[in-house]
Amino acid sequence: MHKAKPGPLVIVGGAEDKTGDCVILSEFLRLAGGAKADLVVMTVATELPREVGDEYAHVFGRLGAHNVRCLHVARREDANDPAAVDAISAASGVFFTGGNQLRVTSLLGGTAIDACLHERHRTGMVLAGTSAGAAMMSAIMITEGSSEANPRLNLVEKSPGMGFVPEIVIDQHFAQRGRLNRLLTVIAEHPGYLGVGIDENTAIVVVDGAIEVIGENAVTIIDARAMTYTNLNGPGQDHNLALYGIQLHILPAGHRFDLRRHTPVLLNEAEAGTSEGE
Amino acid sequence: MHKAKPGPLVIVGGAEDKTGDCVILSEFLRLAGGAKADLVVMTVATELPREVGDEYAHVFGRLGAHNVRCLHVARREDANDPAAVDAISAASGVFFTGGNQLRVTSLLGGTAIDACLHERHRTGMVLAGTSAGAAMMSAIMITEGSSEANPRLNLVEKSPGMGFVPEIVIDQHFAQRGRLNRLLTVIAEHPGYLGVGIDENTAIVVVDGAIEVIGENAVTIIDARAMTYTNLNGPGQDHNLALYGIQLHILPAGHRFDLRRHTPVLLNEAEAGTSEGE
Repeated sequence: MHKAKPGPLVIVGGAEDKTGDCVILSEFLRLAGGAKADLVVMTVATELPREVGDEYAHVFGRLGAHNVRCLHVARREDANDPAAVDAISAASGVFFTGGNQLRVTSLLGGTAIDACLHERHRTGMVLAGTSAGAAMMSAIMITEGSSEANPRLNLVEKSPGMGFVPEIVIDQHFAQRGRLNRLLTVIAEHPGYLGVGIDENTAIVVVDGAIEVIGENAVTIIDARAMTYTNLNGPGQDHNLALYGIQLHILPAGHRFDLRRHTPVLLNEAEAGTSEGE
Repeated sequence: MHKAKPGPLVIVGGAEDKTGDCVILSEFLRLAGGAKADLVVMTVATELPREVGDEYAHVFGRLGAHNVRCLHVARREDANDPAAVDAISAASGVFFTGGNQLRVTSLLGGTAIDACLHERHRTGMVLAGTSAGAAMMSAIMITEGSSEANPRLNLVEKSPGMGFVPEIVIDQHFAQRGRLNRLLTVIAEHPGYLGVGIDENTAIVVVDGAIEVIGENAVTIIDARAMTYTNLNGPGQDHNLALYGIQLHILPAGHRFDLRRHTPVLLNEAEAGTSEGE
């Protein structure tokens, strides 16, 4: 029996280039079939769906896509509309814009579109999202959290995400907004998950149990599986966390991480040198 | 033969409390002898030596110090003044204020005060510094560096420091200014050094080859000795660094780190619980 493979996920740290080479958006388009792609732009996260949708439709058109459709979900019934489900069913690639990740989960969760997205992705459809559209990919989704403070449980708010990539927790705008300590806090609480902090104009492509980095900046991987001590289970939410033995990796474009073995994939210098940076 | 021990170092991440309990400044005063302490406030780093010096003299007086003297070094000859050297020679504790760390090295380096400070510290004098006065303690001193960017060699400027604690590189205002990636960059270049990022109103006390954390927030320890790969030696200064296998520890007040074994000291829960937080 032929078993379908899940489609690639393209998870973008926000603020991706839309006017230059568009390395990230081009790669999404290429994976979805290039000129033959059938794209759907999901604007559910944003409160400006027309403007944001039009902008992406314009960019994807400029990059060579012939079929781009925007799907606006403003109410839960929109996400059960058979025409919307048909659009997702026919798509080779679906792109989620930025906005508020809780709009994604609250408007799509448990709807026909939700089921269709999971089913189509499981059988090969390419799924992408930027910023809020990146955050919602995790099973555990960060919804709020201050930067510029040391790790504490009450530093960060989290919620169940859409679970397209269940083994990782994503944070976006990562270096640009100094978000290490909020991601560290979540990963210390859930050390079975891998923390993946994605910088702006940078993305991970998840395929075949591995992450590949593309784009301008870098991805920070936080692995707490070997953590030797934490005081996290003390009383209250506002004490300063002690975390011993966290593993950290910084991966720029061209570098890969094996999600099964929890290690970066050592590339030879020709592959992993400085030339693939942009 | 009796061998004198080096005095404790109190290295402060900046913005320490000067109006409340003053946990950090009190601990410095206690180590230097309490009411019997003979304190010198070194204002060399700041361009407002009178104002800053007066403020610390006032605080230390309020905390119970009877002998506090400010030493202003505005030109290199001030640092060779025999009266200034006598003051350092007689001091039980010397405190360096914030300002610009390059003022410290350029005005004191190679002077009589420089030699006297090292000799007195080697034989037991307590030495403290905050902000720029903390940065200069290292052998490698960070002088400039942007936050909010992924690690790249040209992200950070560094200089030789005063070398009171030769095995570590210090960064200050650490979580508050999101400085992980600039410290990571320096440590990746010099993996034999331990990176110590100190938050505001937080300090490390270095004594007997160990660090103890005191104060409000936390200290981030970066250990790159076990780093398995970096592309750092590629051409140029502006490529995105890849760093595999960095070890990270977060230590709030009450936690200790063994500088010889490069590991946090596992405390029992009674010692390392949440009660020592403030």
